[in-house]
Amino acid sequence: MASADQPSFTSRVPEGDDRERPVCDTCGFIDYQNPKVVVGSVASWDGRVLLCRRAIEPRRGFWTLPAGYLELNEATADGALREAWEEARAELEIERLLAVYTILRLSQVQLIYRARLVRPEVSPGPETLECGLYAWDEIPWQEIAFPSVHWALGHWRSTLGDDGFAPFANPPGETGRMERPQGL
Amino acid sequence: MASADQPSFTSRVPEGDDRERPVCDTCGFIDYQNPKVVVGSVASWDGRVLLCRRAIEPRRGFWTLPAGYLELNEATADGALREAWEEARAELEIERLLAVYTILRLSQVQLIYRARLVRPEVSPGPETLECGLYAWDEIPWQEIAFPSVHWALGHWRSTLGDDGFAPFANPPGETGRMERPQGL
Repeated sequence: MASADQPSFTSRVPEGDDRERPVCDTCGFIDYQNPKVVVGSVASWDGRVLLCRRAIEPRRGFWTLPAGYLELNEATADGALREAWEEARAELEIERLLAVYTILRLSQVQLIYRARLVRPEVSPGPETLECGLYAWDEIPWQEIAFPSVHWALGHWRSTLGDDGFAPFANPPGETGRMERPQGL
Repeated sequence: MASADQPSFTSRVPEGDDRERPVCDTCGFIDYQNPKVVVGSVASWDGRVLLCRRAIEPRRGFWTLPAGYLELNEATADGALREAWEEARAELEIERLLAVYTILRLSQVQLIYRARLVRPEVSPGPETLECGLYAWDEIPWQEIAFPSVHWALGHWRSTLGDDGFAPFANPPGETGRMERPQGL
């Protein structure tokens, strides 16, 4: 047993279950863990894409798309709109679901929408150092925060002028591991 | 404080956070809660749709699509294939993402794929009383388990012969509440 007043979890199979779950040695609470949903967008204005430089870890100082965890009682497209507002004070119109990525290492399901900015004014929210609209050739490719940002930008570009695409999944062989060499 | 060895949660804002979270009075564990992901499919063979009669609550005895919670470290399409196997011993090929529904009341995000059966043989798994392939007019509409099963079947039918559709969301005004009258 752990000392009193401290959570301490051991992995075991609860009665009536068929998988190991973290169970607290102190209080018996079963911590059922499930994949988490991240919602975000590739939002553009006149061919330029909204990017945000992260003010928080992980990957502080690197560039990302506006995205974050879906909250309880929130529809996925609404979550993508909220994140764009929180991170870049950007107002979007959702066009279409661009991609569903699975980051196995983090058990994350990422739903990334293709969106249009309603107007081109953006400004950094509290989790963002700076943000702006970037033409394809201006994107800071060497300072992208996560592999899935590369994927989403590439998939976004491949859909320009196409309104019949199915949502993309991870590129073949890609799991989202940071150690893997990142293609542009 | 709760009595020892019992989890007992109070909702409060943890230090450094901006939302209330359930915190255990006994051990201090913070139970971050997030929406859960359900993966499933409308799987067909020669125009007939795979349906399963539930052997478990909720809605035991009612008909549903093969679907269930995504597990940790599982890609979404793989989860849909697993559920079809577990519930109906069905082997599928995923065609395309049919819909992303949000059930706000349950904080569920449902990813429903359009799929083809690889062969028409199916048989009930442990959570299924019976299963089979149903032509549109044979579907037991009065005994459907959940509103989102109605949505998915309707959306599936509207995409027949169409390979350019975007994934559907909830029908307008529909939240997935069971009390709401269910259209066919």
